[in-house]
Amino acid sequence: MALKVYADRMSEPSRAVLIFCKINGIDFEEIQVDVLKGQQFTPEYKAINPMHQIPAIVDGQLKLFESHAILIYLSCAFPGVARHWYPSDPSKRAKIHSVLDWHHSYLRRGAAGLIFNSILAPLHGFRAYPQVIIQAEEILLRSLSKLENVWLKDGGFLIGSSKPSIADISLACEVMQLEVLSEKDYHRILDPYKRVKKWIDDVRSVTAPHFDEVHEYLYESQKVYREKMVIQSGKNKTRSKI
Amino acid sequence: MALKVYADRMSEPSRAVLIFCKINGIDFEEIQVDVLKGQQFTPEYKAINPMHQIPAIVDGQLKLFESHAILIYLSCAFPGVARHWYPSDPSKRAKIHSVLDWHHSYLRRGAAGLIFNSILAPLHGFRAYPQVIIQAEEILLRSLSKLENVWLKDGGFLIGSSKPSIADISLACEVMQLEVLSEKDYHRILDPYKRVKKWIDDVRSVTAPHFDEVHEYLYESQKVYREKMVIQSGKNKTRSKI
Repeated sequence: MALKVYADRMSEPSRAVLIFCKINGIDFEEIQVDVLKGQQFTPEYKAINPMHQIPAIVDGQLKLFESHAILIYLSCAFPGVARHWYPSDPSKRAKIHSVLDWHHSYLRRGAAGLIFNSILAPLHGFRAYPQVIIQAEEILLRSLSKLENVWLKDGGFLIGSSKPSIADISLACEVMQLEVLSEKDYHRILDPYKRVKKWIDDVRSVTAPHFDEVHEYLYESQKVYREKMVIQSGKNKTRSKI
Repeated sequence: MALKVYADRMSEPSRAVLIFCKINGIDFEEIQVDVLKGQQFTPEYKAINPMHQIPAIVDGQLKLFESHAILIYLSCAFPGVARHWYPSDPSKRAKIHSVLDWHHSYLRRGAAGLIFNSILAPLHGFRAYPQVIIQAEEILLRSLSKLENVWLKDGGFLIGSSKPSIADISLACEVMQLEVLSEKDYHRILDPYKRVKKWIDDVRSVTAPHFDEVHEYLYESQKVYREKMVIQSGKNKTRSKI
């Protein structure tokens, strides 16, 4: 029985797992869990992941969630995976864990917090707190600065490596999520970080054609979200005139 | 040269690393970095950790930060560490990574967010957002419910293990941070979670006497913070009457 990957391509950690499987030739079945439709709350999915998060995998008896845990597991359990994705050298591996852990509390928190509260929540009727948006953007800008000046300071991939690791895929998919911001906000936030932009291109290139193929749904969604934001902005202007 | 551990015992991940070193008989030097005094921003500490977080370690040439990455590294690099702390079985190890990753975005975010914004920020003059406090408490309550009903559902230690792992130390130190809440809030938040409270006692017991010794500074701080909160509450009442 092939590996099963439960994913929603609008979710950045889902995309990271999908790209990783594809670039490493891992045989898997992709099962779509549409988060905006609440499919993560079905009893069937709860049996896979009681936390209702995506992505998750089922590999034989093992049910596993949390994308970093999944990427590490796949790197170790599938012999065809090249060693540079998760090096066995204790110091290099420790540094990769350090980047992955930092990602949770900084880059993920900032990027996902900003996108959810400023774009997805108002357009899909979820509750959002304006102060949380301010805090999320502060965290995101600090995180991009650290990504540029600490993790990418030596050039190449993260922590100065000449070959990518699972951390590159995971963090690059996070930065890609910013594509659903308005064009103005996207450039305001990301343009100051030249190394980050070059690194995204490098990750795209080294995982081609899978990076763009898996991000296709995000690119399409970008158009839809940007159109909705323009309409929403027009409504708000009309309301403020009334 | 012995391992150096840069830590502040008011920080829950610092305490996790210190308890782990002590229970495993790892020879180390503890170097205090007082976060409330801003000692994490000195040039000397920046050379250890450019992210200005604690804890961090220096082991020979390796400088490492992020407590989970440190706990994993220590488990692998020090041969005296018993295997149950970080099992080599791929599925068990994957489950431990899953708990540790979940911790970042849920339990840590809720507990640390609530404590910082509702207690530390107002008492130490940092900026805090009221809506962030509301959101942090929501996340904390959901996380404690998942800790009780998912991670501890099979009894024993996390993921139903008969022996503790690095995840038990890390998450237990996080829950312990709630001790600085007011007595009323502490009981309101934690009392519904019987399994969580028993598990904390089990982690304390299996890491005795180090757990209480390393938490001694938190217990002393609890008294100070609770007295300050009473004074602050009195001032607010007087102001509202005026």
